[in-house]
Amino acid sequence: MAEPVLRSFVAAANAPDCDFPIQNLPYGVYSRAGGAPTCGVAIGDMIVDLAACEARGLIEAQGTFSSPRLNDFIALGRPAWDKVRADLTRLLAEDANPDLPLVPMAEATMHLPIEVTEFTDFYASKNHAFNVGVLFRGPDNALPAQWTHMPIGYNGRASSVVVSGTPLHRPMGQLKGESGPVWGPCRRLDLELELGAIVGGETELGTRVSVAEAEAMIFGYVLLNDWSARDVQAWEYQPLGPFQAKALGTTISPWIVTSAALEPFRCAGAERVDPLLPYLQEERPGLYDLTLGWTMNGQTMAETNYNVMYYSSAQQLAHHTSSGCPMRVGDLLGSGTISGPSVEETGALLEMTKGGKSPVKVGEAERTFIEDGDEIGLYGFAKGAGYRIGFGPCTGTILPAKE
Amino acid sequence: MAEPVLRSFVAAANAPDCDFPIQNLPYGVYSRAGGAPTCGVAIGDMIVDLAACEARGLIEAQGTFSSPRLNDFIALGRPAWDKVRADLTRLLAEDANPDLPLVPMAEATMHLPIEVTEFTDFYASKNHAFNVGVLFRGPDNALPAQWTHMPIGYNGRASSVVVSGTPLHRPMGQLKGESGPVWGPCRRLDLELELGAIVGGETELGTRVSVAEAEAMIFGYVLLNDWSARDVQAWEYQPLGPFQAKALGTTISPWIVTSAALEPFRCAGAERVDPLLPYLQEERPGLYDLTLGWTMNGQTMAETNYNVMYYSSAQQLAHHTSSGCPMRVGDLLGSGTISGPSVEETGALLEMTKGGKSPVKVGEAERTFIEDGDEIGLYGFAKGAGYRIGFGPCTGTILPAKE
Repeated sequence: MAEPVLRSFVAAANAPDCDFPIQNLPYGVYSRAGGAPTCGVAIGDMIVDLAACEARGLIEAQGTFSSPRLNDFIALGRPAWDKVRADLTRLLAEDANPDLPLVPMAEATMHLPIEVTEFTDFYASKNHAFNVGVLFRGPDNALPAQWTHMPIGYNGRASSVVVSGTPLHRPMGQLKGESGPVWGPCRRLDLELELGAIVGGETELGTRVSVAEAEAMIFGYVLLNDWSARDVQAWEYQPLGPFQAKALGTTISPWIVTSAALEPFRCAGAERVDPLLPYLQEERPGLYDLTLGWTMNGQTMAETNYNVMYYSSAQQLAHHTSSGCPMRVGDLLGSGTISGPSVEETGALLEMTKGGKSPVKVGEAERTFIEDGDEIGLYGFAKGAGYRIGFGPCTGTILPAKE
Repeated sequence: MAEPVLRSFVAAANAPDCDFPIQNLPYGVYSRAGGAPTCGVAIGDMIVDLAACEARGLIEAQGTFSSPRLNDFIALGRPAWDKVRADLTRLLAEDANPDLPLVPMAEATMHLPIEVTEFTDFYASKNHAFNVGVLFRGPDNALPAQWTHMPIGYNGRASSVVVSGTPLHRPMGQLKGESGPVWGPCRRLDLELELGAIVGGETELGTRVSVAEAEAMIFGYVLLNDWSARDVQAWEYQPLGPFQAKALGTTISPWIVTSAALEPFRCAGAERVDPLLPYLQEERPGLYDLTLGWTMNGQTMAETNYNVMYYSSAQQLAHHTSSGCPMRVGDLLGSGTISGPSVEETGALLEMTKGGKSPVKVGEAERTFIEDGDEIGLYGFAKGAGYRIGFGPCTGTILPAKE
């Protein structure tokens, strides 16, 4: 007989398609009209006010939940994460005392959940790396020689990370023209469907971590849209990598789904082409069985799974420390665009439209890249027995360029 | 008749080869045995205790000098910078009241002067870009097509920035082997002689600044050694740029020489090959006549001038905001390696030894790249009439790899 599914006294949390059942308990930062941002946990259609819970002696987090960012709580470490999760699971259960400080989600404004100390973006979907490589460099040089040996990554710009719902202006930029470069609005604006890992531990300069240690350092995950100006990128990116093409904004979902909530969905990733060097080898599978997709103006455009990835966030984090690079609480690691093998599974328009050559239908309209006024949404969830672990919305609308 | 040179009652400041005359007044963070780090200004062989000065009502900075970082003071903006500079110039003059809180430099430990919010490194010496391009890609593809049109840059890792004197371990890394990659200590460890600009203002997401506005936002400059693992770099850097090759550490000098102190040395940079797009054009010359050099184990290896650069820090900062990327107080912008045309003017061993093919003499020894125990020092100064504006030391010693 199957174990009965754990339920909450918050009724909305028990609907099978609710993103925030009692099994999830993602962390975020919210405010109400006139109030200061504070930390909360999502349950159904409500938010648990964590600072108020601690003030009532229901949970214990050294006062860190009064902060407008989750960094201080995260810095307490995994024993604190585990204790608060266990206490909230007990407090929110169907038969628990319902006298909890709950705030309707509908009354809350969500904020960036962490102060992003630094942002690194990787490139870990083989389908994406190959498809984009073909478009930028042709099929012979599509997949770089080191791709199957290391998680290729680059440092992004932390100051440009914004929370879901923040509108972004189409960027201006330097573009390649017929006779030399021109200045103008980006004409090939794209999204990138990614998962972002939140680093929850510190390392010292000169210290490396193993994949197992790295895994233990990851607090949780958000959806991440790494907006990309493809025409700016094509002109600027050699030899030092993408720079202004990726600095117009990176949108993350407001709720951090914890590693603990995703644990039941652990699975292997893409098949290895080459054996990895020992420092990148995993003791156990490091991906999650997570459905991920994206929408344009409400229409689902593509859907794939996180398990197509070749490298896990733990492998990326271990590689990130391979030189002795110090990591800090609040570092954000983008997985890289998540694309499956078919066009219906592509996490970027560049791939989906073959570099703008094959337009796609969006309702009655056609698109090669993002137009002004378009809203892009990401979604993601893991499917359990009778419940799902969801990320909630991660949306952004593109406003006209400020010329 | 020439104007008499301004002198200080701190005698050591009046020596013509002193880095810290009354015309300089660079900012730093120091501590004394058992004390907390606090902000100071260098004068001769002494440090002015700025928090104590403010406590005595001699200067005014809203209490920001008690901080262990200069970010809060810098955030007050240029009027505050100008007022404190003017007050200190008066207080430290030869005929001034000598009852100032002065600390002997010999008793002080220097700290990182700012919390580095983010670190960006550019690539603005044409000699360096060409020389390195030849080594990495051959002479035909040496200088990228966009190089003369935009300041190429990439995001570095802020967490790995350390203050002068911090020893660094040779990094381990993934290297290209005969039959696939191998794991091992870096064999081609290099320095990069750079100047680092400290951003002293904020911009909002979606906002661009002109070159003139960018110039006004720069608080000052430090010497910057962007240590580079060339073998790691060669294997990892395509297509997304350098990553772990540059994350083993970046050393900066402890004293921030202000834009105000460098103003008399303003000059033009390298001759333009192509006209710049309007957003990068300068109303006035943006480089400085600054002698810059580096030493290995005490021996001067190369000396060049900041005026060889093709782009100024102000142009780099303006470009950095071209996409609408937000900038913050404490952002550090590396100029890129500063190399003149001849081998005696090269700011990196990679160039000096032609990729390791032409060893150089260091005393009785030979070097192609940095060996364990080697100490690299950077120096820099502008030469005025009867004084010089110096940066003080910027040193680092390489310790063996932690295998």
